[in-house]
Amino acid sequence: MKFSPLVDELIQALKCLPGVGPKSAQRMAFQLLERDRKAGQSLGHALSKAMSDVGHCQSCRTFTEEVHCPICASHKRGQSQVICVVETPADVLAIEAGGHFSGRYFVLLGHLSPLDGIGPDELGLALLEEHLASGEVSELILATNPTVEGDATAHFIADMAKSHQVIVSRIAHGVPVGGELEYVDSTTLALSFNGRLPL
Amino acid sequence: MKFSPLVDELIQALKCLPGVGPKSAQRMAFQLLERDRKAGQSLGHALSKAMSDVGHCQSCRTFTEEVHCPICASHKRGQSQVICVVETPADVLAIEAGGHFSGRYFVLLGHLSPLDGIGPDELGLALLEEHLASGEVSELILATNPTVEGDATAHFIADMAKSHQVIVSRIAHGVPVGGELEYVDSTTLALSFNGRLPL
Ligand SMILES: [Zn+2]
Ligand SMILES: [Zn+2]
Repeated sequence: MKFSPLVDELIQALKCLPGVGPKSAQRMAFQLLERDRKAGQSLGHALSKAMSDVGHCQSCRTFTEEVHCPICASHKRGQSQVICVVETPADVLAIEAGGHFSGRYFVLLGHLSPLDGIGPDELGLALLEEHLASGEVSELILATNPTVEGDATAHFIADMAKSHQVIVSRIAHGVPVGGELEYVDSTTLALSFNGRLPL
Repeated sequence: MKFSPLVDELIQALKCLPGVGPKSAQRMAFQLLERDRKAGQSLGHALSKAMSDVGHCQSCRTFTEEVHCPICASHKRGQSQVICVVETPADVLAIEAGGHFSGRYFVLLGHLSPLDGIGPDELGLALLEEHLASGEVSELILATNPTVEGDATAHFIADMAKSHQVIVSRIAHGVPVGGELEYVDSTTLALSFNGRLPL
């Protein structure tokens, strides 16, 4: 039943959010209309503003509404000789939450995926190569995901970095701390054996 | 880390949606920014428009941006002598999806809850009483939820309707069709015994 075009439009629009189907879209729309129109207004405003004004850092490609993101713009980290390469801005947040990495980042915004038309250009690898060629980078830490595409992307970038005499490493993959061996999948287990370190 | 005020604001704002915590808010924000800014813009627009323009039907209190909702405005159903009382607009949608009810509705937008300051006024019962007093209502079907508050609300409205010589009924509660007896909770089971019908 189309009992209100505006409400129907809102329910349809909410389905663009990941993990939101027709039922939860309806629940969300009704909850905002019934109980929190102010929050709904704020969300509408935040969405419009972010979608139109958020761009990408000209140095690392993460999201920012400035020319450079705070990390690249910072005096301390923006000049770091260590660059960590990740697939997404969410990965940057995850690593920053850990608080142990003090270099800068390069965000690919994806991984090599020829079938989807995602090649070196889409990942901004020319910009990364500029950084490498500048002589201001001593180490590249590859933190792409341990998937087929993430692996391929890491190897592609590793080859590129080596031609610029930059040290390349990849973060370790293995059994997570607190994880129980018997519940870890076999691929992870294989990686943790291959990456074993002498004690 | 606050790497982008606009992105942070968007993530915060998304948490107003029911069932959306910090992690999913972040995932939603990044997905829209990375892959579907147009959908994000549409959602922002739909939210702003719905929050400011959607009001309540002057006859049944459901959501509408018109004076009367399509059901109340319809020649056939708007004059129906049978009114079904529900707690929320979502209940209207659920009953309409069934397609077997052809009367009109009255939407309480809640249930009696004295501790939360929700009394007869908040539920628009004066408007419902106007309908009852008009002599144009023959039956009131109470479809409030089978909860303590829903029950209390149903009884309150039933008393009101009886003083206007209107037939009052309540929808049956019991084992759902296709439900398995052994998995139905004991309260529902008790209701289904109390509401048993002769064969
Ligand atoms: Zn940056
Ligand atoms: Zn109406």
